[in-house]
Amino acid sequence: MMTIVQKRQKKLALTLQHHNLKALLVTHAANRFYLSGFELHDPQCNESSGCILMTSEGEAWLFTDGRYKDAAARIWPQDRIFIYSGNKDEHMATWLRDRGIRTLGIEAGSMSVAQYKALGKSLDLIPTRNLVEELRTIKDATEIQALKNSCALNHKVLAQIEPLLAPGMAEASLAWKIEQLFREQGASELSFETIAAVGPNSALPHAVPGETVITDNCPVLVDTGCRLDSYCSDQTRTFWVGEHPTSIFQETLKHVQEAQRLAIEHYLPGKAIKDADQAARNYFAKHGLDNHFTHSLGHGVGLETHEPPAVGPRSQAVFKPGMVVTAEPGLYYPQWGGVRWEHMVVITENGHEIL
Amino acid sequence: MMTIVQKRQKKLALTLQHHNLKALLVTHAANRFYLSGFELHDPQCNESSGCILMTSEGEAWLFTDGRYKDAAARIWPQDRIFIYSGNKDEHMATWLRDRGIRTLGIEAGSMSVAQYKALGKSLDLIPTRNLVEELRTIKDATEIQALKNSCALNHKVLAQIEPLLAPGMAEASLAWKIEQLFREQGASELSFETIAAVGPNSALPHAVPGETVITDNCPVLVDTGCRLDSYCSDQTRTFWVGEHPTSIFQETLKHVQEAQRLAIEHYLPGKAIKDADQAARNYFAKHGLDNHFTHSLGHGVGLETHEPPAVGPRSQAVFKPGMVVTAEPGLYYPQWGGVRWEHMVVITENGHEIL
Repeated sequence: MMTIVQKRQKKLALTLQHHNLKALLVTHAANRFYLSGFELHDPQCNESSGCILMTSEGEAWLFTDGRYKDAAARIWPQDRIFIYSGNKDEHMATWLRDRGIRTLGIEAGSMSVAQYKALGKSLDLIPTRNLVEELRTIKDATEIQALKNSCALNHKVLAQIEPLLAPGMAEASLAWKIEQLFREQGASELSFETIAAVGPNSALPHAVPGETVITDNCPVLVDTGCRLDSYCSDQTRTFWVGEHPTSIFQETLKHVQEAQRLAIEHYLPGKAIKDADQAARNYFAKHGLDNHFTHSLGHGVGLETHEPPAVGPRSQAVFKPGMVVTAEPGLYYPQWGGVRWEHMVVITENGHEIL
Repeated sequence: MMTIVQKRQKKLALTLQHHNLKALLVTHAANRFYLSGFELHDPQCNESSGCILMTSEGEAWLFTDGRYKDAAARIWPQDRIFIYSGNKDEHMATWLRDRGIRTLGIEAGSMSVAQYKALGKSLDLIPTRNLVEELRTIKDATEIQALKNSCALNHKVLAQIEPLLAPGMAEASLAWKIEQLFREQGASELSFETIAAVGPNSALPHAVPGETVITDNCPVLVDTGCRLDSYCSDQTRTFWVGEHPTSIFQETLKHVQEAQRLAIEHYLPGKAIKDADQAARNYFAKHGLDNHFTHSLGHGVGLETHEPPAVGPRSQAVFKPGMVVTAEPGLYYPQWGGVRWEHMVVITENGHEIL
C-alpha cells in the first residue's frame, strides 16, 4: 500500500509528465516536507536543510548536507539520499549531469537568483510556479482532520484569552500568554507571530505587539494561530474591553461580520474565488466603507499559514472541494483602531464547513 | 547628527559607488532592518514585508504594501515611502523607470527567480552578493553591547537549566522550558529552534526535540539562543546527567573543549579565518577523530543567528575587529551520541573576548 507521501510523489510525477518536465528540484521547505516528511522548516530563510529531486518517472531523491545525514537516513531509503558538500550547487549539478539530467525544472518562487545562476552554469533550468503548491491546495482527509484539530485548539485558546483581557495588560504580555496557552495544550509552535493590538494599533493590519496597555474601554484585536501535527490555524477576533463600546466600534464590527457572512456564501465548489472577495467589497462599498478595507479577503491555510489559493480580487481560480481558506474582512481607522474577523473554511463536495 | 541607520546607509552608498552601481534593491529581511529599522522579519520566507531602494547618492526609499503603510509612516519620511499594489513587481519596475532607474543591483542570495524574471522584463538587473552582509560583519559598539546582553541572558538560562536536567524529562519539555526562561527574562523570541537532544539523538547536529526522555546516566546536548533587543545569541553545552559519565563521553568532551581552545587562539584581527577551523581539525586529526567532526567550526552572529563571516575550511576572509563569531567544534557517534561546545567571540583591536 502506498503511503500518503508516495501518493503525493505519484501525483507530482503526473504533473511533471503533463508539463513535459523530466525532473523538478523542490526547494521550498513546505513543499519538500509535503513530498518527504523531511524537515518542515529551514534553519533560516536563506539557509536550506535540503531539497527533493522528483522525476517524471516517479523517482524521488532527498538531497541534503552532512548535518542532516542521520536524520535523513531515519526516514528515507539510503540509496535515494544524496549528501552534498563543498560547493553545494556545483556538487548537485555534477551529480545531476552524471545521471543524464541536463534539463531541470526549478521552483521560481523559492529558488534564489544565486542558486539559479550557479546551477544554470551546467544545467538548463526551467522556472516553474506553484506545481507542488497546486497539489497542496486540495487537502486529503488526514490533512483536513489536522487542520480541524489545529483550529479547535485556536478556538479554545481564544475562549481562554477573552476573560483575561483587562486594563493594564500590555500587548506583548497578551501575545506571550496566548503563545503559552497554545504550547501547553499541544501546539508545536505559533503558526505566525501573534498580532495583539490595542486601541489605534488595531488599525495596523500587521501590528507588532509592544508595550501599549489595554485601557478601560478600548478595542483589542487578536490575530493568532498555532501549528498542531504540522498544520496551521489562523483566527482573528476583535474584542471590546470595558462596559461601554463606542457606537462606531459596534457599527464597524457589525459591518465586518456581515461582510464576512456574505462572502462565505460564495465559498462553494466551482465558484470563482474572486466573487467571494467581491461580495465583501460590494457590501462595504454600499455603506461607503470600501476604502477602509485595505487587504485581500483571505488565503489558503495548510502546512503554511499563507499558501495558495489567494482569496482576492486578482484570483483566477475557483473553489474546489478540499480547499481550506480564510475569510477575514477588516475595516481600519488610524484614529481609533480597526476590526477584523476571521474564520477558516473548508470547501466540501456540496458547500462548505466553517472550522 | 546622523542616526546609526543613516550612517549605515551612507556606508552602503559608498559601497555602491565603489561597485559602480547606481542603485541597489535590498530585499533580504535582516539587511532591510539594518538599513531602516523596518520589520526585522518577513511574515514567511516566501512573503516580503517590503524592501529598501538605496541609491549611490545616498537616497533611501522604503517600498512596502498597504498592510504596512501606517507602520512605515511611523518610522520613515513620508516622501520616501512607496506603497506598491496589484502586481507588485510590475508596479515597482514602472516606478523605478519613471525615476530614470534602468539598471538595478539586486541581492542574489535572497531575491527569488520569480521576482528576478518579473523585474528583469523592464530593468537591467545586476546580481550582487553580500554587499550589506559585508557591512554587517563589523558590529559597532551598540551592536556589540546588544550581543553581549543577548549572550549574558543565554548564559543565565543555561545555568538555570542545568539543575533541572533529570531522568524522565523529555527533549520537547526541556526545549519549551528553555524558551519560557528566555521569554520571561526579556527575550523577544528564540534566535533559532532549540536543539535539546538526549542520548544517541545528540549525534544529530540538527536534532529536533521529541519525546525521547533523559535517562539515568546519559548525555544531553543543548544548543540554544535568544533574540534580545533585536540581536541573537547562540550557545551549545553538552551535559552528562547522572553520577557515572562514561569514559568515552569524558574523553570526547575533553577533546572538543581542547579543540575549541586551540581554535579560539586564532580568533585574532588579521588572521585568516580558515586557520581557526584548521586548528580544530588538526587537533582532532592528531587523535584520529577528524571524521567525527562533520561541520564547520562556526559562523557570524548578529541580527541573524547564521550570518557572514562563515568560519570554515573554505573561508577566504580574515578576522577583523568588530566581528562576532561562534567557535563550536563537535564530535558525533551515532551509537551513543555527540558532544558540541560553543562560545561566541568578539574580535577586538588586539585580540578577542569570549562573550
